[in-house]
Amino acid sequence: MKRKMIVSIAQLTGGQRERILAAAERHGFEALFLDREEDARQALDGAEILFSQSAALARHAPSLRWQCTPSAGVDHFLAPGTFAGPEVLLSNSSGAYGVTIAEHVIMVTLEILRRQQDYTEITARREWRRDLPVRSIRGSRILMMGTGDIGQEAALRLRAFSPASLLGLNRSGRNPAQRFDRILLPEDLEKVLPETDLLILSLPDTPETRGVLDQKRLALLPDGAVIVNVGRGSAIHQGALEKELRAGRLSAALDVFEKEPLPQQDPMWDCPNLLLTPHVAGNMTLPYTLERIVELFLEDFENYCAGRPLCRAVNPQKGY
Amino acid sequence: MKRKMIVSIAQLTGGQRERILAAAERHGFEALFLDREEDARQALDGAEILFSQSAALARHAPSLRWQCTPSAGVDHFLAPGTFAGPEVLLSNSSGAYGVTIAEHVIMVTLEILRRQQDYTEITARREWRRDLPVRSIRGSRILMMGTGDIGQEAALRLRAFSPASLLGLNRSGRNPAQRFDRILLPEDLEKVLPETDLLILSLPDTPETRGVLDQKRLALLPDGAVIVNVGRGSAIHQGALEKELRAGRLSAALDVFEKEPLPQQDPMWDCPNLLLTPHVAGNMTLPYTLERIVELFLEDFENYCAGRPLCRAVNPQKGY
Repeated sequence: MKRKMIVSIAQLTGGQRERILAAAERHGFEALFLDREEDARQALDGAEILFSQSAALARHAPSLRWQCTPSAGVDHFLAPGTFAGPEVLLSNSSGAYGVTIAEHVIMVTLEILRRQQDYTEITARREWRRDLPVRSIRGSRILMMGTGDIGQEAALRLRAFSPASLLGLNRSGRNPAQRFDRILLPEDLEKVLPETDLLILSLPDTPETRGVLDQKRLALLPDGAVIVNVGRGSAIHQGALEKELRAGRLSAALDVFEKEPLPQQDPMWDCPNLLLTPHVAGNMTLPYTLERIVELFLEDFENYCAGRPLCRAVNPQKGY
Repeated sequence: MKRKMIVSIAQLTGGQRERILAAAERHGFEALFLDREEDARQALDGAEILFSQSAALARHAPSLRWQCTPSAGVDHFLAPGTFAGPEVLLSNSSGAYGVTIAEHVIMVTLEILRRQQDYTEITARREWRRDLPVRSIRGSRILMMGTGDIGQEAALRLRAFSPASLLGLNRSGRNPAQRFDRILLPEDLEKVLPETDLLILSLPDTPETRGVLDQKRLALLPDGAVIVNVGRGSAIHQGALEKELRAGRLSAALDVFEKEPLPQQDPMWDCPNLLLTPHVAGNMTLPYTLERIVELFLEDFENYCAGRPLCRAVNPQKGY
């Protein structure tokens, strides 16, 4: 009898499904493509591998050995009781989103520096006004909090814009691929904030990152500083940031929020000096991203079948 | 008696004025800062050097030997009779705008590829919709028409986004700073258009560039291609492009138009699939640009005083 793999990712193309199917068959697996979560739930009995971003399926899968999520963030998997058994492996798709999120980071940074929201309003009124003062990435002092795939891909692109400095901050002190001028540790944060023109966050949601940018730390940023958050909304005290934005002291581009979807009545919807996007920086709407997700899964599927460690295994202690 | 230099650039900072003044004095010049064109006009008698983007002053300056314009484009200086005498040198500020225009190019390209105009409308309605298909610079086939300062600075940054190819097109066949995979000549244009996903124009206005992208050539571009024009509006047949945009076959980001300011009733104002900006990619509102303009002027002022050729002398035959 064949071993059972359930794939529940509606966006997969026909070609991607065929590649997963072929790999599964080579290793004696039956691959079931059940795009809708309720269909997947019906078929969980005996399933050994689950390729889905749902954290609600696993607890009903007593035979589950490995779940791979096509997302990068795994915070929704870390609640106790998510998995039926303690030995279930969890892996993510870290490495698939760097390209698309880095492009988002560069775009929104430039939109803020070049007053693109104001120019959108000006041209909507058919006005030919051209005199708004603009700023540049060139000569800016950049701090990237989080130096994983996203931080590295953003740094690679930002470097080409000749910033004055490009610093990374992480827990390990390692400078991945030498993408940063140097690496700071969490304890250096308050020292560097006053010298930061552009602060980019690509942090996972963990107990250490929650609320890391509170009112006191936001106040350390110089006037005119720009914050870009493409990690998790929990990293920033949203109410404190809103005050700074409404005061006109800081600008921000937020793709993530404390609560998502952002509630209809949330004051952030019409907050000035804020470029708001509905968590689109890193979803699967870019074909390249989906292609990478499948590639990374197939690579770890080979590892799984060979009894090797998974490349993208999540460390539940660290939370990423 | 001192020789006379008139500077008519309202945006100059105090420090920049002081530097110009000091250099002028070192060479026996009196520098008059007359920000308003009418004030400058009153003082033209005996003026040897004019640092101004106005093409209307020179004909009233019988002693003029050199005009430096803080702009890059010089099309408005090339009409016969602009200068009182035939031996007047004209130089421009080519080299000052590459950084700011390159940032504009990357920004608007990403805004189109990532559907940012649609997301602006979505969030204005407080909708949390995230499913629009997006595209990437990564893997795109890019053609840059015009490989001067602007084209080179844009290429430097685009390279960091891993395009599939990055070609330049110019008249000389030279590959400046090896920024491009290879250089095409004007006669290659129709061959390469069908293989171009992203077409960026940074061309001056000359008889050769006028109307270079006509209906027939626009039709050669593949479905979904994106056009970015930051050079001069005359390069594109605007009516033909409008048809392609309204048909949804192409998208464009235009900073320049056949007629500027764009007339109030022009159909381009509400053309779909068009990101319209009011000629802001390369004005002097970025402090770095203004700083470079002054640096480049002072460099050529030293050349002028030493009797050396100017670095940024305009060739009236070429038009740039």
